[in-house]
Amino acid sequence: MGGPEPKEGGRELERIIFFSDAVFAIAITLLVLELAVPEVPADRLGAALAEQLPHFFAYVLSFLVIGQYWMTHHRLFRHIRRYDIVLIWLNLLYLLGIAFLPYPTALLGAYPTTPLVDLFYGLSLLWPTTVSAVLWFYVRRRGFLSDELPPDTQRQLGKRAIATAAVFLVGAGAAFLSIYAGVFCWVVVLPFVRMLVVRRF
Amino acid sequence: MGGPEPKEGGRELERIIFFSDAVFAIAITLLVLELAVPEVPADRLGAALAEQLPHFFAYVLSFLVIGQYWMTHHRLFRHIRRYDIVLIWLNLLYLLGIAFLPYPTALLGAYPTTPLVDLFYGLSLLWPTTVSAVLWFYVRRRGFLSDELPPDTQRQLGKRAIATAAVFLVGAGAAFLSIYAGVFCWVVVLPFVRMLVVRRF
Amino acid sequence: MGGPEPKEGGRELERIIFFSDAVFAIAITLLVLELAVPEVPADRLGAALAEQLPHFFAYVLSFLVIGQYWMTHHRLFRHIRRYDIVLIWLNLLYLLGIAFLPYPTALLGAYPTTPLVDLFYGLSLLWPTTVSAVLWFYVRRRGFLSDELPPDTQRQLGKRAIATAAVFLVGAGAAFLSIYAGVFCWVVVLPFVRMLVVRRF
Amino acid sequence: MGGPEPKEGGRELERIIFFSDAVFAIAITLLVLELAVPEVPADRLGAALAEQLPHFFAYVLSFLVIGQYWMTHHRLFRHIRRYDIVLIWLNLLYLLGIAFLPYPTALLGAYPTTPLVDLFYGLSLLWPTTVSAVLWFYVRRRGFLSDELPPDTQRQLGKRAIATAAVFLVGAGAAFLSIYAGVFCWVVVLPFVRMLVVRRF
Repeated sequence: MGGPEPKEGGRELERIIFFSDAVFAIAITLLVLELAVPEVPADRLGAALAEQLPHFFAYVLSFLVIGQYWMTHHRLFRHIRRYDIVLIWLNLLYLLGIAFLPYPTALLGAYPTTPLVDLFYGLSLLWPTTVSAVLWFYVRRRGFLSDELPPDTQRQLGKRAIATAAVFLVGAGAAFLSIYAGVFCWVVVLPFVRMLVVRRF
Repeated sequence: MGGPEPKEGGRELERIIFFSDAVFAIAITLLVLELAVPEVPADRLGAALAEQLPHFFAYVLSFLVIGQYWMTHHRLFRHIRRYDIVLIWLNLLYLLGIAFLPYPTALLGAYPTTPLVDLFYGLSLLWPTTVSAVLWFYVRRRGFLSDELPPDTQRQLGKRAIATAAVFLVGAGAAFLSIYAGVFCWVVVLPFVRMLVVRRF
Repeated sequence: MGGPEPKEGGRELERIIFFSDAVFAIAITLLVLELAVPEVPADRLGAALAEQLPHFFAYVLSFLVIGQYWMTHHRLFRHIRRYDIVLIWLNLLYLLGIAFLPYPTALLGAYPTTPLVDLFYGLSLLWPTTVSAVLWFYVRRRGFLSDELPPDTQRQLGKRAIATAAVFLVGAGAAFLSIYAGVFCWVVVLPFVRMLVVRRF
Repeated sequence: MGGPEPKEGGRELERIIFFSDAVFAIAITLLVLELAVPEVPADRLGAALAEQLPHFFAYVLSFLVIGQYWMTHHRLFRHIRRYDIVLIWLNLLYLLGIAFLPYPTALLGAYPTTPLVDLFYGLSLLWPTTVSAVLWFYVRRRGFLSDELPPDTQRQLGKRAIATAAVFLVGAGAAFLSIYAGVFCWVVVLPFVRMLVVRRF
């Protein structure tokens, strides 16, 4: 494709990061709108709130997941110094996945034990992870990364991007069998895998 | 009209850009609220989700469209160095169109094959495009553009603004006949036209 | 009250402005959520959309009104150099009024010809205007304004703040008689009054 | 746990503050969505609006509460110079509580006199306060605070964090008995306690 010359970051790159941060912040805060106030007599409210537990669970899970994505995005863009229109589009496709998450969250709250929904949720998580990995390899191949980042670290981070995507792929499958297995992958296995690499730089 | 003297950009111009970026980010993230969780028995959920396909399609389409507008706005304001109150109002009228887009998106998801809705959606896209073209000619005529931008490029960008508005006008008409024809205009024809000009600077 | 010493602006004042801008941007973009997609057969959609005209009218009106408030806030804070906790609270009370506006907007869309609603809408506009005038006199009295702002201009701006509040007060009353009279005040009379003063600096 | 080395703030710390401010601004502005337009004949609208008084009360209360949290967060992060991943997670857990507040607000509006709801609301306020106190002690112990902040002031602020959490704990209990008692704690007692300490620095 070629396209126009890559541009030096500065002001423009900051605006891209700002836009991404705003989408993260809005998506994570919109999650609460999926929690509906029960319409029952006051004396049955306790039971009604207890029935909403899956919704609260989905809320907290997605909040932490989006927070995790935000931190990863953070770390990734800290190393980027140049950009082109392909990078902007990849970032938009990534944000499409982030901004979409309130929907699978609401779905998971409403149908917590339906395998199809668990799979849907898992695949929704897989999307930004995959785009993020593609984005990483793109910026590496095009030389958009900070020169201060040693090639060794770049390779490490590449491995981490693949490992993360793999965990999410396994997690989506596991979620189809049981949402608990999926959550175990995303919440326990994933940070563990990540931490192994984070230690390196 | 005359009005007060144009002011040098700096801090103030940044605040206008920040405000615009925030509106873009919020509008693009609010799109997801139009996706309603189906209320059916769990075993009929697969079919219910399949029925929602037009909503998902409208979601992705509008996400990419707003993303595209955001990039164009980006590129436009990168060249602006001075502003006055007319520019601020034009920008507000532009943002009115952007912030409105979640509504035609929801309409398109609910009535994907109704010609009236397709036209409505198309005209909703036409509005920010047209205001954007007016804004461009205004800043050019008033000399608000960066002095580094050669007159030749300014003319090129003016042509592009008109070409874009023309594609959207044709697209709105095409959408009235068939939503596919409209989408073809916005998604295939438009970036093609834009790329022709982008190459130049 | 006394309270803690006023602080020099810099970074902190910027964060207050950023927060205010974000509330403006969110409130103005949330307006669209009040527009509900009609649920009628496709062949009756045209009529249903036509019935929604008051909603579209309320949407555009409130969008322009919030935009106008945003610009005024802009202009006001451009001159502020110091702040204290009272200023932050006044600004929060002001933003409470801005963030509330989507509700009277929805009310106006649903009951466009009910005098009570028109009055409610008018009073909702009166709130931020009044707080804004109080805020202006507070910062003036405490000497929080830029030293570059000549005392003469400060007085002019004070007069404008009072004039604006007066127009809104009259507008709320006029809206009770007829929404058109109210809109005339806010959209025609107000910018006219403002422009008279803007010319001065 | 140890983990990676703490990093000097600068750009990254700013992005964390920006993200937090955005969540605050969105949560505070989303509150208005909980106010539903009554669907009654126009002549019964006055009575319907009067019935909504608890909702308006909950709206204003939560607006001021979130505003208060925002200011506290402000003040806290003004002194932070370094950060690590634990700080980011603590901040996320804090924001989870802030972003959640529109839900208990809606609940309080719908069931203003139900003790369970008042307790629920009180506990929702307790969460961010507690996390905030933990965060404060963490940054102090790790030496993330500005060196300009004298140890004496640090101790004062630590005491204030504990005092605030204690007031909220008492307030949650008081709210269970009567929402008015709870509100009295949060709105009257709390600022009083805070002011006592603020005077010191």
